[in-house]
Formats: sequence, C-alpha cells, structure tokens
Amino acid sequence: MTETFAPLGVLDIVRAVAEGTLDPRASVAAAAARARACEPAVGAFTHLPAIEDAAAGAGPLAGIAVAVKDLIDTAGMPTAYGSAIFADHVPAADAAVVKRLKALSAVIVGKTVTTEFAWRHPAGTRNPWNVGHTPGGSSSGSAAAVAAGAAHVALGTQTLGSVLRPAAYCGVVGLKASFGAVPRAGVHPLSQSLDHVGLFARAVDDVALVLSLIAEGDGAPAFPAFQVPPEGLAPFPKPRIGLLMGPEWTLLEEAQRETLRAAAAAFAAAGAVVEEITLPDAFQRLGEINATLCAAEGAYNLGPLTDRFPEKASERVKALVASGREVPAVAYVAASHDRLALRAAFPAALAGFDVLLTAPAFGEAPEGLGNTGDPALCVPWTTLGVPAITLPAGTGPKGLPLGVQLVAPFGEDRKLLRIAKACEIALGRRPAIAPVS
Amino acid sequence: MTETFAPLGVLDIVRAVAEGTLDPRASVAAAAARARACEPAVGAFTHLPAIEDAAAGAGPLAGIAVAVKDLIDTAGMPTAYGSAIFADHVPAADAAVVKRLKALSAVIVGKTVTTEFAWRHPAGTRNPWNVGHTPGGSSSGSAAAVAAGAAHVALGTQTLGSVLRPAAYCGVVGLKASFGAVPRAGVHPLSQSLDHVGLFARAVDDVALVLSLIAEGDGAPAFPAFQVPPEGLAPFPKPRIGLLMGPEWTLLEEAQRETLRAAAAAFAAAGAVVEEITLPDAFQRLGEINATLCAAEGAYNLGPLTDRFPEKASERVKALVASGREVPAVAYVAASHDRLALRAAFPAALAGFDVLLTAPAFGEAPEGLGNTGDPALCVPWTTLGVPAITLPAGTGPKGLPLGVQLVAPFGEDRKLLRIAKACEIALGRRPAIAPVS
Repeated sequence: MTETFAPLGVLDIVRAVAEGTLDPRASVAAAAARARACEPAVGAFTHLPAIEDAAAGAGPLAGIAVAVKDLIDTAGMPTAYGSAIFADHVPAADAAVVKRLKALSAVIVGKTVTTEFAWRHPAGTRNPWNVGHTPGGSSSGSAAAVAAGAAHVALGTQTLGSVLRPAAYCGVVGLKASFGAVPRAGVHPLSQSLDHVGLFARAVDDVALVLSLIAEGDGAPAFPAFQVPPEGLAPFPKPRIGLLMGPEWTLLEEAQRETLRAAAAAFAAAGAVVEEITLPDAFQRLGEINATLCAAEGAYNLGPLTDRFPEKASERVKALVASGREVPAVAYVAASHDRLALRAAFPAALAGFDVLLTAPAFGEAPEGLGNTGDPALCVPWTTLGVPAITLPAGTGPKGLPLGVQLVAPFGEDRKLLRIAKACEIALGRRPAIAPVS
Repeated sequence: MTETFAPLGVLDIVRAVAEGTLDPRASVAAAAARARACEPAVGAFTHLPAIEDAAAGAGPLAGIAVAVKDLIDTAGMPTAYGSAIFADHVPAADAAVVKRLKALSAVIVGKTVTTEFAWRHPAGTRNPWNVGHTPGGSSSGSAAAVAAGAAHVALGTQTLGSVLRPAAYCGVVGLKASFGAVPRAGVHPLSQSLDHVGLFARAVDDVALVLSLIAEGDGAPAFPAFQVPPEGLAPFPKPRIGLLMGPEWTLLEEAQRETLRAAAAAFAAAGAVVEEITLPDAFQRLGEINATLCAAEGAYNLGPLTDRFPEKASERVKALVASGREVPAVAYVAASHDRLALRAAFPAALAGFDVLLTAPAFGEAPEGLGNTGDPALCVPWTTLGVPAITLPAGTGPKGLPLGVQLVAPFGEDRKLLRIAKACEIALGRRPAIAPVS
C-alpha cells in the first residue's frame, strides 16, 4: 500500500457509475481491499464481511462502500454495540438507515469499532495519521476507516461529540444533521433525547448526497428534503459567519486557534462576512443539560444490562448508570424543557449570522488510546439538536489534523451544507488519505 | 329562562350566517344573554366580558360564541388558571388556539371555571342538570356552559379525563384529538406529555368543524388535515366497534353498563359490527404511566409556584408537587418510553376493530362539589395520546346524563369523527339543553 492510494469521493463514483466508466463492483472491491490492508495497523473494523457477491445493485449509491458503526444493527452480521455483553449478537434485521442504504445499492464494507455502547470507555482503534494517537470516539472506527480510504462513507452516531470530534481528529468531513432527520430504529440507544446518526466522508458534497438520500425524520418535525445535483451543491454566496468567542476560546490549543483564524480569513477572502460573536450566557448551560439527559436516559437504557452482566460492563458505563439513577425526574423535565427553549432561542442568538464557526475539538487527537478526547466543544450543538459539520482545515504541531466546525439553526441543514461547500472551496484542499502502510 | 331555550348548533349557525338568515351578532348576543341568565345557578364562568362591540367579523366562525377554560390565556381578560396565585393576572397575549378562533371570527363569550391548575382541587361550578352535583372537572365551567346553552362551543383541556368526563356528566359531546393536534402555546401546563386542548359542543359535526379549523399540530407528527362540508361529515359506513371488556367493566354503575349495552345494540342495528374486546394486559399500565409523567411534570411546572406561595396553593396541588419530586428520572424515562410503545402497539391491539366503545366515567356525576369524579376511564386514552370522543347516550337513575366513549388509533381523528357521526345518528337524539332557570 503506498501513499498514492486515492479513492474517489462519493459524488465522483456516483457520476462515473452513471456514465458507465466505473464498474460499481470494482469500486467496492477496491475499498474492501484497502480496508483489509489497513486493518492490522488501524484496527477500525469489528467485522469485514465477504463482499464478492454483493455490489450488484443499480441504485443511486451503487459502487459506494459504507462502513457502519457497530452500534447499528446489520442483519446477519455481528453487532456487539462495543460491549462484551453482546459479543455473540447477530441481529435478524437491519437498522432503518442500513436498510435504506442497501436499498440504494450501497454495500457494507465492514462494521466499525465503537466505544462500549457509544459511551466513554475507549476501544482499540488507532488514528491512521499516527497510530500512537486516538482517532477519537465513540465512532472511532468509522472516522478512521474513512480517513484511511477503507470506506467512501461511514455511519456514526453522536450523543455528545462522537462524530464531529473523531472526524476532526482524523482529518475528514463529519456531519450531524438536525435531531430526528436520520431514523434511529435499530441503533442501540444511549440517550433518546440526544442520539443522532451522523456521517463521515471526505467532501461536503459526499455527506450531503448521502444525507439527502437517507433523511426522513423519525418523529421530530419533518426534515426539509433536498436534492444534491450531479455537479454537487451550489456554494452559498456571501454567508454571514459568526466566529464564536466565549469561555472556550482561551482553552483551545494555540494551533487550533490559529487554524480557526486562518479559516476565518480564508472565508472572508472568498466573500463571506466573518465577525466575532458570543452567545447569551444561557447557552453555557447546554453541557449540564446534556449531562442530565444523557445520564438519566443512559441509566434507563443500560442499567438493566449492567445489573445483569456487571462483569461484562466497564466501570465508566456503570458510573454513568449510577449517576443517572440519582437524577430526579424534575431535573430531567427541566433539562428537556430548557433544551427546547434554547433551541428555539438559537436563531435569534445568532444575531443575523447564518452559521457559527467554532472548533470541533480543543486541538489535535490526544496521544495514546486511553481516552478518546474531550467532546465538550460539540456537546452544545448536539444538545440543541442543530445541524453541525466539521471540515479538515489544517495540521497541528504533531502533524495531526485540525478541523473547524460550522453550526446552523435547527432544520437549516441544506443551508449549512451549502455554506460548508463554500468554506471547503475557500480552504482550497481536499482531505488526503492517511498514508497507512 | 324557560326549558324551551334551544340554541342552534355550530354547523347550523355557520350555514345560517352564510345564507344570510342569521345575524352573527344576534347569535352571539343570545348565547351571552343565556350565559348571564344561567350564571347564578351554575357558576360556569370566571369572567363574562362585554361583547356588544365584538361579533362583527366575517370569518368562518362568525356567530359562534366560545367559552374558554380559564387555564387558557386571553389577552386583556382575567386568566387565573384556577389559582389564587394568579387572581389578578391578565395576560398580554392570547393563547395560540384563542388567537386562531378570533381570527376565524368566533367570539369569546366568557372564561370558564377550571380546577386549580387543572388538577384535582374542585371549584364551585354546579352541574346544570342538578346543581347539587359536580359537573366534573377540571374543565368544569366549559362543560357546564355548553350544557346550559351559554356557549356554542367551549375549549377545555384534558391531562387525565378533564374533557370527556365532564362532557359525559353534563350530557354534551366532548372531543380530545390526537396529542399535539391543537397547539398549546399559552395554555398553562400541568403535564407537557399529557396535556391536550379539547372541545365541548352538542353535536359531532360541531366539534369536528371547530377541530378542523384549529388543528395544526405543535411538534408532534403532523395532524392530518380534514374539512367538514356544510352538510356535515359523512357517517362512516359499517364501522367495526370493539366493546371494551376487562377489569373496568364490573366497576361500572349498572346504569352505565346498560347504557353501553343499549348503545352497542343501537350501533349494531344501524349496521355496525359490534363485538366484545379486551386489550393486552400491558395496557393496564397506562394509569401508572400517567401518574408518573403527570407527577414529575406537575412538580416541574407547579413546584416553583407552590414553593413561593404555599398559602395560596391547595393541599392537593402541594401533594402532587411533593410526589412528583420523589420520582426518579429513570422511572420518568421508562414511562415516556412505554407510553410511546403502547401507542405504537394500539392499532394491532384493536385486532381489526376501527374504534373502541367504552365508558367515559363510571356512571352519573357524583353528588356534591367536593370532588369532580374519577377520571380513570379516560386516562388510558389520554396517556396514549389517541383521539377520543364522548357522546350523550342516556340518563341514569338520578336523572343525570350518561355517555359513551369512542377511541381510535393515533392520527385517525377524522375516521373517529365519522364513526361518531354514525353512532350519533344511531342513538337518535341530540343533547338537550339543561333546563337551568
């Protein structure tokens, strides 16, 4: 395997297959071969199925290799949710989002490593850019797989910062659409109020196309449908971008601050209005709101499992359950209420800006595999349930990727993606494939 | 005031105004006069505004006098939520549903008595059929006002059984649409998961018309819009009606059982298929689920008020707050989950029947004003959030009204109303006006 490995993007493949210049089976086979080649070094996968007979469909995602976080049910494939309790579990049915992807002729290239039940206990996946560092989590394997070129797109989930943070650490695009946009049936729940299905790929158009094909809402207000044309989204002209200041700013690593400043300058040079903004103090409560909801719902979802199989659960999951059992219902109801009130207040808090520009993480991926990094900079937007995307935007002093995060009001997913497309062009780079050998 | 007072129904008025044979101002003025005449005996109202200058609109509800439960905000009119804490409260804005009704040219004939914050502490309204009996609650005044002919339609709210039970006790039609169908902004919350805005009138077509004009959903899956033609809804042909047996049956007063049996026979004679049905045991848990959700949310909503003004709150409300503060969040999350699972399971549990036929209350209105009766027979359907309607269907040994309740799956509001129309025809009677003098 050499550094010249350069798989096509999702939109490239879709166009080439439509034009008859690419055999979709060859496209999927190349990704599968890359997945097997990288696996000893990266450890992104829990399962790599045989795919010789698959990839024969003619749907709009023919030729696309999808990596699926092992928190998400796949019929006939091992699905352990990152837990020893489910080591031998093979679901009978696909999750709704997997069923949909298969119906579109995408092929599952593999199941990817998740932290235990998508909570904090780390798993063994390594960052493809430096295997001595974490790829982030909980969608560790999905981020690493896309970064290594082992999948064209990957499914993850985000309850705190489990898509955008690992995407930033691994130098790929990570997208979390508005809460409820992507159906969650068949995804093991951590926190019903907060769980989102998210996407990893290497270009804004690629996550946009897949989102446009799988979004349908599951109870929340209907997701506004949109289409991605063959040439990709039209960049949003002259977006108004608020660079988020506030308490987090001084906590960022210097290289992360520089990356944000440089991105802001690039966006402004490309025609955007970029100014500093702070949010009202009430938005500082989103972390506490997330903790309350996640602990209570985590205890509901995982408590019966940790009670029955205590020896197969980590101390971190047991601590979540224990803390969640201490939460009074009144505090939970208050958190639910405040969250929706802040979501409703968010457009006005943006004070005329179309999107926020902020860091997806404090800096580069932490060294070692003992923890997956701090999700705090993603938590507010997950809690609001608003759409957020991270774009690769530079490299830090350790040579690891740094990202920038864009955040829009609830339901403005398409606008966010068009602005992200404009920003991606302004940044003038396409994410490289990690040179895993 | 004589027993011959017989106001027109909503649909009658709408047609007559459209045909130019009825002056909408005269229609509203007649209801207002009746409201004033009945008030000394019934005590349905907390506020009777001057309406000489109103009623001049030309919208689709011109000529309709609406009584509004005092739990619902009305701009510039006293709105105390049944609480001494809010004795002097005058909201600046109308609740969403009131704003909508005014935009349709309906006129607020008065604000109606509610129990304190729509919880159990009784208020002073008397049953128009016998002023020694409760009209039920918490929408006490709205039910009594329609029964007395003091309003053509009334708004109530139902969290346990606060619309259908008083409607049955007062011999009028009571409707609670699918959860979320009628917007609740500006309605004082008791329990966010359970609160519904409901309607009282004297005919199925009348509640159907008003619902069709005010329903718009407020976050739940979109309410399926429907229209009511000038001649009224088409009765649903040959409905399949399941007469609900189960533990409650033996607890009914004998006259209530006879009323249900007689109604079932009348429906069958009119072409319906009517057979006995029991629901799976899991549905017996709905009362406990309701209690958990209502206590926790009630404590969240009312706790800060009872803490600050303990001397202005009843012991019953303080007991609700105290019990709600003991609920663990995990129990609340479980109740929320189980409720939605039971809602999803309800269509299959109906086993081919279109609707359930059951009692809205155990029998006639209890004697005295010390309590508003037992809501237990409405609670399961409120908790499921499914549409339910009660029709007057007879009289008990004390000469007080008895009703029957029809219940349909979530979102099947229009079908329920068409079946109710068929049942109303089969019962062959229109509710009389209570002979209040």
